[in-house]
Amino acid sequence: MKKHLPTILVVNDDGITAPGIKALMHVMKEIGRVVVVAPDSPQSGMGHAITIGKPLRLDPVDVYEGIEMYSCSGTPVDCVKLAVNKIFKGQKPDLCVSGINHGLNNGINVLYSGTMSAAVEAAIEGIPAIGFSLDDYTLQADFSHCIKYVKEIALQVLQNGMPTATLLNVNFPKGGSLKGIKICRQANAKWAEEFDERMDPHQRPYYWLTGVFQLNDNGEDNDSWALDNNYVSVVPVHFDMTAHHAIPVLNSWKFNV
Amino acid sequence: MKKHLPTILVVNDDGITAPGIKALMHVMKEIGRVVVVAPDSPQSGMGHAITIGKPLRLDPVDVYEGIEMYSCSGTPVDCVKLAVNKIFKGQKPDLCVSGINHGLNNGINVLYSGTMSAAVEAAIEGIPAIGFSLDDYTLQADFSHCIKYVKEIALQVLQNGMPTATLLNVNFPKGGSLKGIKICRQANAKWAEEFDERMDPHQRPYYWLTGVFQLNDNGEDNDSWALDNNYVSVVPVHFDMTAHHAIPVLNSWKFNV
Repeated sequence: MKKHLPTILVVNDDGITAPGIKALMHVMKEIGRVVVVAPDSPQSGMGHAITIGKPLRLDPVDVYEGIEMYSCSGTPVDCVKLAVNKIFKGQKPDLCVSGINHGLNNGINVLYSGTMSAAVEAAIEGIPAIGFSLDDYTLQADFSHCIKYVKEIALQVLQNGMPTATLLNVNFPKGGSLKGIKICRQANAKWAEEFDERMDPHQRPYYWLTGVFQLNDNGEDNDSWALDNNYVSVVPVHFDMTAHHAIPVLNSWKFNV
Repeated sequence: MKKHLPTILVVNDDGITAPGIKALMHVMKEIGRVVVVAPDSPQSGMGHAITIGKPLRLDPVDVYEGIEMYSCSGTPVDCVKLAVNKIFKGQKPDLCVSGINHGLNNGINVLYSGTMSAAVEAAIEGIPAIGFSLDDYTLQADFSHCIKYVKEIALQVLQNGMPTATLLNVNFPKGGSLKGIKICRQANAKWAEEFDERMDPHQRPYYWLTGVFQLNDNGEDNDSWALDNNYVSVVPVHFDMTAHHAIPVLNSWKFNV
């Protein structure tokens, strides 16, 4: 009896030529039928941006033998929307994986990350989704220690499904021997910005966004702790932004209007 | 005895010349010292995007007498980061208001919205923050029925403060006589995409993102219901993306790795 081969949408935010997506698509090829839709240029930090003021391109490309690939002029979220609508034409894939990102997406980075936002968009579409990220920004990043975890986590999601309206945010320490998987919450951690101010040749100032990631969390159940202690962090993510606990507080306010 | 005059950062995503921010800054001027930092071009749908691959401009502009204004080349979130770091220099404002957006940001739109993401960024910085949006996309939008609510909600936030790590998402029906304020949760509602495919003069296809907003929620406690019933919807928003309820589920999975 032939087993159903799952269809897997692979996306990222570092762009279609990034080593991270190459590593990810090759693992996924061992599991199912792979379709890659990735930005034609780096889209790091694009968050949940979509393109509404200009049209989008979606072009088939032939880079790796035996893998269906498309290059998209838009954001990571645009890639997912176009994939669902124009490539899968409503026949949703069984899984969407995003990454492997060059750089961590723990703590508050889940909001800035194009990698995670693509996975969030897939989850909004009802597709089981996982974002993968590695603690290495460089093009020379070594993903080899991540591969068995990526495969196992993807298989578990395919087998178990995801709780309604959730997805996974998976982050990997840079290397060495990993201690295993730790299910976590998002760390209370944010960026302290430091804009680098420079002068252009016309004596007009310009600013480069830089910053330092600050952990304000003593817990041992958060993703920053797990990564610092050489675990693979797995955070279940949702897209209900309602602060439910604050509803009674607001109902106690007396609006004079 | 002189009362402390609050400092209010005004941002938006429709750009510095949008009628919505003009309406907002004039209400805020009745309450405190206003500093406006807004994108130099429309940034609708930019979500929580930040600019990391190119430098940013931040230029003082002199548009409305007596209001300190800056035009920024980046995203709405960049505007907040630059304001906090380069204008306020760490002396955080007492309040950040974003909008008034030309178009609703109820339901899942909180994720796509530059207006809301700017407010979220302010809240991450620890600044009490509110995003305001009106159900009218046009440049001719009439904000007059919103004004007394905008002022009262801002005053309440200044007076009460916000529960830790939360902000407000306020949406207004298009007009008519409003029934009052309704504290809500985010509706379960999403976009069903419909890409409009066209051919360029060189016979290559391109796509315009369009869609239909679909409500999948029968509740009378959500923002879509409130707006449909002519209430001002007020949703408390947080930025913890952790699906806490899913942690025990994932802990029950048997990872073979």
